[in-house]
Amino acid sequence: MENNGQPNKKSKWTIASSLMARRTYNPIRAVVDGMKLEPNPEKELISLSIGDPTVFGNLGPSQEMKDAVKKALDSGKSNGYAPSVGYEAGRAAVAKRFSLPDLPLDSKDVVFACGCSEALEMAILVMANPGQNVLIPKPGFSLYWTICTAYNVDTKYYRLLPERSWEVDLEHLESLIDENTNSIVITNPSNPCGSVYSKEHLLDICEVARRHRLPIIADEVYANMVFSNTKFYSVASLADEIPVLTCGGLAKRFLCPGWRMGWVLMQSRTGAFHEEVRKGLFNLSTRILGPCTLIQAALPAIFDNTQPEFYSHAMEVFEENAKLAYKTLHEVDGLTPVMPQGAMYLMCGLDSEYFRDIKDDQDFVEKLMCEESVFCLPAKVFEYPNFFRIVLSVPPEKVKIACQRIKEFCIRHKKNL
Amino acid sequence: MENNGQPNKKSKWTIASSLMARRTYNPIRAVVDGMKLEPNPEKELISLSIGDPTVFGNLGPSQEMKDAVKKALDSGKSNGYAPSVGYEAGRAAVAKRFSLPDLPLDSKDVVFACGCSEALEMAILVMANPGQNVLIPKPGFSLYWTICTAYNVDTKYYRLLPERSWEVDLEHLESLIDENTNSIVITNPSNPCGSVYSKEHLLDICEVARRHRLPIIADEVYANMVFSNTKFYSVASLADEIPVLTCGGLAKRFLCPGWRMGWVLMQSRTGAFHEEVRKGLFNLSTRILGPCTLIQAALPAIFDNTQPEFYSHAMEVFEENAKLAYKTLHEVDGLTPVMPQGAMYLMCGLDSEYFRDIKDDQDFVEKLMCEESVFCLPAKVFEYPNFFRIVLSVPPEKVKIACQRIKEFCIRHKKNL
Ligand SMILES: Cc1ncc(COP(=O)(O)O)c(C=O)c1O
Ligand SMILES: Cc1ncc(COP(=O)(O)O)c(C=O)c1O
Repeated sequence: MENNGQPNKKSKWTIASSLMARRTYNPIRAVVDGMKLEPNPEKELISLSIGDPTVFGNLGPSQEMKDAVKKALDSGKSNGYAPSVGYEAGRAAVAKRFSLPDLPLDSKDVVFACGCSEALEMAILVMANPGQNVLIPKPGFSLYWTICTAYNVDTKYYRLLPERSWEVDLEHLESLIDENTNSIVITNPSNPCGSVYSKEHLLDICEVARRHRLPIIADEVYANMVFSNTKFYSVASLADEIPVLTCGGLAKRFLCPGWRMGWVLMQSRTGAFHEEVRKGLFNLSTRILGPCTLIQAALPAIFDNTQPEFYSHAMEVFEENAKLAYKTLHEVDGLTPVMPQGAMYLMCGLDSEYFRDIKDDQDFVEKLMCEESVFCLPAKVFEYPNFFRIVLSVPPEKVKIACQRIKEFCIRHKKNL
Repeated sequence: MENNGQPNKKSKWTIASSLMARRTYNPIRAVVDGMKLEPNPEKELISLSIGDPTVFGNLGPSQEMKDAVKKALDSGKSNGYAPSVGYEAGRAAVAKRFSLPDLPLDSKDVVFACGCSEALEMAILVMANPGQNVLIPKPGFSLYWTICTAYNVDTKYYRLLPERSWEVDLEHLESLIDENTNSIVITNPSNPCGSVYSKEHLLDICEVARRHRLPIIADEVYANMVFSNTKFYSVASLADEIPVLTCGGLAKRFLCPGWRMGWVLMQSRTGAFHEEVRKGLFNLSTRILGPCTLIQAALPAIFDNTQPEFYSHAMEVFEENAKLAYKTLHEVDGLTPVMPQGAMYLMCGLDSEYFRDIKDDQDFVEKLMCEESVFCLPAKVFEYPNFFRIVLSVPPEKVKIACQRIKEFCIRHKKNL
């Protein structure tokens, strides 16, 4: 007999996993785990695959940040339970930092979460019911799909246009909206694209949301992480009447993803979240009880004491790497890198027609690893085959070597046209 | 038109919360927020309500623990993403600590979580499907209900018997089992009861599980927190063939609930979790990505460097308070304290027949607060009306004053028989 979808567990002591546990998975993992990834033992491995700015040791949290955590430790006052939405002082610091002239925030508009990941889970879950759909970008960060699928919320992918620096295909976006559409996720700056949207483009996206009365979930974990001559606009700053749940955290801009500090901001000029969503986020926060209190307690000092040079140094590294990588890859027949304007990634298109024996992005990545010990992510994990993503937080000398190897690899595999 | 259970959101910019967000709530909050809790301005407030050993400043993490976290900070190696199930070294340290002679654990049998709260969520979710039921204790920790209800998993409460030091009513437990029963949650030592089960009683519980082939979720966040002359047995140590998911963490024994460090142990002598549950827990961990890496990295040193006196000091405080409170409350007509054997709580029965104007536990708690500025939790929040719970982590002089005030309060409200 089937027991609610579980194989009959009575017959032996094998415990079945739930449908939800089986549904919950990370597409990156699913693809990468299935790949043949044997580096060339003759060449040092350079991994350009993980969106973690700390892995190479060149980037990480500042001394000021560490001191702030130590102070929280020494105070002896930050070891107990915080309110499940987070310490008041920390939420007030976030509110102050993200207040806009015409949309001031209060601590009660901020809910803490374990990283931007949990912030996204809360933002999606607080609004969407099973059977509804959430519009998410393609290529896009895979967690949106993972969260929605785990909770039986449907997703529909709207197209981004590489030829327009990964702007949203607005017509396509609008064509996906139906009566079950619950919200639109916007990632800006973007992982995996490194794109940063202009004011005009964000206004165009907002106009679609406004027309269909859809709230926006703005994933701004890369807020303000833009290259020179690029300006960052938050969705909320341009959203006018459209309610926005903005998700953010320390992971990227403060170079400490392991600290798991994130937040959801309730940003609405019309009080759209007052009645239910605020209470809903509060409810959801009572399950996990928020991030580590030491980091929560350190947050005001982290904001206050971090010097402008800390932020600019990281962005200089990312931008230098972006230019380096773009320049080298752009010269290669069969590759079409898209120059990013922010975040810490570059997407590069791949035309298998140019190659003798490269089937697709996964094949490219496997062979590149095997021959050149360079590891990139096939963009198929972002629902965007025939691109690959490289991470720009690596020390520039490694990016140089890696791109040089990619170039040689491509020349070696070139089709004789 | 109804939109999947949401009020029609098209009419105005009011965003409805999801069914799940509405379903997710903490019964403690729901009761406490609805209570009239005005302390007497003439008397200092003594709150005996929160299961947080750090609130009074008398108890907290040791210097060794703080040093371990500082070392992780200074190393600069613990700021990036950990594997979603946790750092290998930390999981190996947990595996070593909880290995049993006949049931050794390996790091792959350990999954980290944000506190024991998330560990419980993962343990329940990895096995139970919507429509199935999980058996949970009454009185019991309210999070089990909160988690199950959030995910549409049913709960059935099995009775604990105050007259038998809160042992499980085994017949009642067994009578609840049906074809949809998925697992049994055992809390030992118990919040709110402070009970610690004997080897014999745990074997009896296991026998019920074995007969019905049900896995056990053992909430052992209070593992080893027992008073003198009491021995703690983990469920897994006695479970024989029964698969046990044991949930634990640093919160209580290491006096740092805010650090949010928890774990699930897969303990089975028959490999019952190998096929699906291990993978399921791994899947579930990819949503939140585990606790703060600084604490994860500090964990091996926290285990190694903590001195026996650290643990015994806290237990001496709890036991002294238990004796103090029991002695005073036992003398009061209408009150029936149950002497705890561990954890950090004492439950006290209340017979409203003895009182002039006390309706029930909530009424008792409200009036006690208003007149005596002593705050206890009405056990109705644990599904057990006509009891109240007091927390034993308070400095002993405060427990003394608080119990004295409770006594005077009861005498003042005594019915003239
Ligand atoms: C677009 C985007 N959103 C959210 C996250 C998750 O951030 P966190 O580490 O704070 O959970 C990431 C991490 O890579 C990301 O790229
Ligand atoms: C029985 C029980 N289990 C689990 C928890 C949750 O522990 P944590 O703070 O590690 O999430 C508590 C906290 O009070 C508890 O009493």
